[in-house]
Amino acid sequence: MKHDLSRSIEILSRTPATLRALLGGVSESWTMANYGPETFSPYDVVGHLIHGERADWITRAHWIEEKGVREPFPPFDRFAQQRESVGKDMATLLGEFEALRAKSLVELAALRIDEGTLGLVGRHPTLGTVTMRELLATWVVHDLDHTAQIARSLAYQYKDEVGPWRAYLPILPKA
Amino acid sequence: MKHDLSRSIEILSRTPATLRALLGGVSESWTMANYGPETFSPYDVVGHLIHGERADWITRAHWIEEKGVREPFPPFDRFAQQRESVGKDMATLLGEFEALRAKSLVELAALRIDEGTLGLVGRHPTLGTVTMRELLATWVVHDLDHTAQIARSLAYQYKDEVGPWRAYLPILPKA
Repeated sequence: MKHDLSRSIEILSRTPATLRALLGGVSESWTMANYGPETFSPYDVVGHLIHGERADWITRAHWIEEKGVREPFPPFDRFAQQRESVGKDMATLLGEFEALRAKSLVELAALRIDEGTLGLVGRHPTLGTVTMRELLATWVVHDLDHTAQIARSLAYQYKDEVGPWRAYLPILPKA
Repeated sequence: MKHDLSRSIEILSRTPATLRALLGGVSESWTMANYGPETFSPYDVVGHLIHGERADWITRAHWIEEKGVREPFPPFDRFAQQRESVGKDMATLLGEFEALRAKSLVELAALRIDEGTLGLVGRHPTLGTVTMRELLATWVVHDLDHTAQIARSLAYQYKDEVGPWRAYLPILPKA
C-alpha cells in the first residue's frame, strides 16, 4: 500500500485508545516487567512513545520544512523515559500520551501536507536523506512495532507456564 | 511469573476492547490485507479468535474436567474462520468476539478453578499431556500473540513506505 495521509491518521489516532485498553488498570506484575536484559517493559514503551510525541515525529516534520537537508535532525534519545517517567504511574503516562498524540495530530493537520510536502527531504543523523513521506509512514509503523512489543513483553511473563504449547506460540522465545 | 487466574483474567478480559480500539472503523485496505502467502489478515485473526471461543479454550477446560487423559482433545481447526466469517464485516466480528469472550469468562468462573483443578491433566492431540494451568496460560499468550500479529500485519502494508527507517523497525521483514 502506498503511503496515504488519511490512512496513516487512521492508525495514529487509535494508538492511545489501544494502549489504554491493553494496559489501563493492569497490575504492575504485568506492566513493569520486561522480556530480558536491555528490553522495554510496557511501562518503558509508553514513556518512550511520550518522548516521541515531544521530540521526534512532529519536531522532525517541522525540521524538514524549515531546514531541509542543511542540518541533520537532533538525535533522538531512546532512553529519555528513564528520566521523564520517574514518579509517574501507568494511568498518568497513558493520559499524557493520549493528550500529546491529540496535539500532534492537530499540528500535523496544520502542516497542510500535500504531495509536494510529502516529497520534502531532511537529513537523519545516521540514515541520511529521508522524505517527509517516509517520516510519516515510519511514525505509523513505529506505533505498531511498539504495540507488538508490549504484547511480547506481557506474553513473556508466562513463558514458563504454557508447557508444551510454547512450540506453537511464536511470540515467545524458543525454549 | 507463575500462572495466577486473576492475572490471566486481567489480560483475557481486555482483548476484545484492545482489538476494537485497534481495528474498529479502520478501512479495509488495512484490515483485509495479510503479510505474505498463507498469513492471516487482521480480519482473519479476529475470525480465528472467535472460533477459539467456540471450540478451543473453555471447551478444552471442560474436556479436561470430564475426560482427563482418557481421550485427546478434538483437533482445533485453525482455518475455520474461512467458512465462519463469510459475509460478516469487521464490526460484526468484533462484536461477536466481545460477546463470546464475555460468555467464556462467565463459564471460566463457573469452573471454580483452584489449585487442585489447575493440576488436572488432559491430552492434546499432538502435544501429549497438558495441565489445566498450561491451557489457561496458553489462552492468555495466544491472545497476545494474535494482537502482535495484527500489529505486524498492519505494519507490513507500509513496508516499502518507510525508506531507510526499515532497518530500525523489527516488526517489518528485513529488506
